[in-house]
Amino acid sequence: MTAVATAVPAERIAAAVQGERLWQRLMAMARYGETAGGGVNRQALSPEDIAARGQLIGWARARGFRVFGDAIGNLFVRREGTDPSLPPVVSGSHLDSQPAGGRFDGAFGVLAAFECLEAFDDLGLVHRHPIEMVAWTNEEGSRFAPGAMGSMVYSGALPLDRALDATDATGMSARDALAAVSAATVDIEPRKLGTPISAYLEAHIEQGPILEAAGLPIGVVTGIQGARWFEITVEGATAHAGTTPLASRRDAFQAAHRIIAALNEALADPAGPTGPTRLTIGRFELEPGSVNSVPALARFSIDLRHPDSGQLQALAVRVEEIAATLAAPCTAACKPLLTIPARRFPDRVVDLVAGASQSLRLASMRLPSGAFHDAQFIAELCPTGMIFIPSRDGLSHNEAEYSSPEEIFTGARVLAVALAELAASIESSWKA
Amino acid sequence: MTAVATAVPAERIAAAVQGERLWQRLMAMARYGETAGGGVNRQALSPEDIAARGQLIGWARARGFRVFGDAIGNLFVRREGTDPSLPPVVSGSHLDSQPAGGRFDGAFGVLAAFECLEAFDDLGLVHRHPIEMVAWTNEEGSRFAPGAMGSMVYSGALPLDRALDATDATGMSARDALAAVSAATVDIEPRKLGTPISAYLEAHIEQGPILEAAGLPIGVVTGIQGARWFEITVEGATAHAGTTPLASRRDAFQAAHRIIAALNEALADPAGPTGPTRLTIGRFELEPGSVNSVPALARFSIDLRHPDSGQLQALAVRVEEIAATLAAPCTAACKPLLTIPARRFPDRVVDLVAGASQSLRLASMRLPSGAFHDAQFIAELCPTGMIFIPSRDGLSHNEAEYSSPEEIFTGARVLAVALAELAASIESSWKA
Repeated sequence: MTAVATAVPAERIAAAVQGERLWQRLMAMARYGETAGGGVNRQALSPEDIAARGQLIGWARARGFRVFGDAIGNLFVRREGTDPSLPPVVSGSHLDSQPAGGRFDGAFGVLAAFECLEAFDDLGLVHRHPIEMVAWTNEEGSRFAPGAMGSMVYSGALPLDRALDATDATGMSARDALAAVSAATVDIEPRKLGTPISAYLEAHIEQGPILEAAGLPIGVVTGIQGARWFEITVEGATAHAGTTPLASRRDAFQAAHRIIAALNEALADPAGPTGPTRLTIGRFELEPGSVNSVPALARFSIDLRHPDSGQLQALAVRVEEIAATLAAPCTAACKPLLTIPARRFPDRVVDLVAGASQSLRLASMRLPSGAFHDAQFIAELCPTGMIFIPSRDGLSHNEAEYSSPEEIFTGARVLAVALAELAASIESSWKA
Repeated sequence: MTAVATAVPAERIAAAVQGERLWQRLMAMARYGETAGGGVNRQALSPEDIAARGQLIGWARARGFRVFGDAIGNLFVRREGTDPSLPPVVSGSHLDSQPAGGRFDGAFGVLAAFECLEAFDDLGLVHRHPIEMVAWTNEEGSRFAPGAMGSMVYSGALPLDRALDATDATGMSARDALAAVSAATVDIEPRKLGTPISAYLEAHIEQGPILEAAGLPIGVVTGIQGARWFEITVEGATAHAGTTPLASRRDAFQAAHRIIAALNEALADPAGPTGPTRLTIGRFELEPGSVNSVPALARFSIDLRHPDSGQLQALAVRVEEIAATLAAPCTAACKPLLTIPARRFPDRVVDLVAGASQSLRLASMRLPSGAFHDAQFIAELCPTGMIFIPSRDGLSHNEAEYSSPEEIFTGARVLAVALAELAASIESSWKA
């Protein structure tokens, strides 16, 4: 990819994006799996997901866009380029949601990409590369594990069969659920897994408080922070809370408490609590779990994140050291649950997004993504970047998740300018 | 009660106690509710409890002892004194167990008292006061709450109707369960609740590690430590573990961690970890409880014990202060769950037990009871004391609970000497 100046001015491309149309589509999509609390329950490969896919395909067909699907159910909508032999520039996200999710996580990125295809079509924009919208299958992972299943299988990070063998809480396999999706979505052209992509750009809500706090409409995402998850199990011995002096105890809770105190200190970010290091203890349980029994066992989770892979690894080593050395008189085992290396996006994509924002005279900031995204895996295949818009109160995975029509419109306009540049727009036949 | 010298030498009284007979009775009793793991599941007013009561009544009748029962199912076995109008000296404990309990907790105190009655009978001991063995109903409280139900109702600490209204996990009331007990145990003479007692002495396993560690056969119990139980609920806000900087969080786990760190410091015993202050965090839970969600809620229990009521109260005030002041930016509520004031036994009873031990040339130590006992409530009615024997590894409420035949024999001999003195033995017609 070389930096090719767009022939069509950014303002003209952005002006073709229709905020009202995009907002209406988002609201229409939110009806598939809508919850009483104003959120969305549209888990992967569910009837609600099938209906949402049907809606999207309907909109694509109404426009005359071609629709492709692959073996894991990823859905592609294509606007042709002047050189159909070139790999497409792809943009999108996912349509599935958490069980008590919101209307914007995933859907914004998919529908913003679709809006760009429509805007380019309205504008009669001519571009060398094909441009495609994608909806990756099962990003959330709440029904079938792991999440980012569609992008992982597409990029080769997860074997197809292993993904299809995943089962939900009722015992249904992803294979069977996907067969129902395929049966309901006919006349989709086949797309081979791993088909080359020239560049990938994903628009997403931030899912955090940083842009809102900074009062900025656009986040230029520099990469996706890495994560290490651990489960630490501390074993001691239960005893009677009344009769056992503290000196005679092997109290698993107190050993866990000491370990966590040391973790808080050792893993504190040098920049303080606004710094990038993030440590979360989200699960904590005791056995036997009665008021008057000294706990024999404490089990807790550690979610550790950092945008720099080297630093993340150094912090993870500290976790293992602290668990191993501070449990006495109990013992502790530290089991790794998840390792996701930090991912830096290429400077040229980051700069291109920043430039698109600047060309529309929008203030922006560069920040790493705190959440995981399909972009994490597609970045293995091609130059990749992301665009963030603010999330009210930093909320997501929550029915109250919200970004305003204006914020959504702004994000889609930046996406359109960036996509046009990536696909190298060369002319437009102005319709509006 | 005045200190009356026994007319019969301690050695002669102790020599009438038969260790083998007591051990065999304990093993026979352990068959009612025996578990595969070598323990006992004989919960209050269960079929196993009914069978155990039937066994005890059978042994009493075989000896010609009278058997009494009251409205809450407490069972008394009486050996008459020379002055039947005097209130009896009573000794015993309970026959019910925890669901995965041991063979000695409760049963030792009941059967040691029964052995004393038999030993006195074998010896032809004459005593002024009647001497009675008691088996209090439902000390453990694992099936019907609260525990110590029989002694609380007898002493007036709990209204009979409230006790009978208690229901178990299946919805059965203590009233109905007790009716089944009454139907199965016929020809019991009635005993009015609260009938005066001249003195109460309870033998029990220590349920802690102190005597074993000190290598001493007898614990002279100075009282029962008080307890304060609290439930602390910390409320924060959930957030995405990846996207939310620490500075933006209201992390309920971390607030709970700070509170507990402060409690550990403020409630540390001046004498160090061998001192009497006991703080236990036995339950701890987080919501929503997922690895990558900042906890919105943390809820944990505090079990705080001290043998001095004033000091216990001062420590409890600190708990409430710390919870109220250290939760920011979260909020915390501190809910009292249980208040049991510390109980000091009268010096004269403590000294009498120490003297009985010394008269048999047994080494002993004075210590408060860390566990609750029926003696806690009977102490409201009359001069009360307790005798402890060692518990292997400090274990109880555990199938592996164990005290050796020798330890049990020794405890019963001290109990016999002390009971004879309390009842003022005045002669014996030596049979052996």
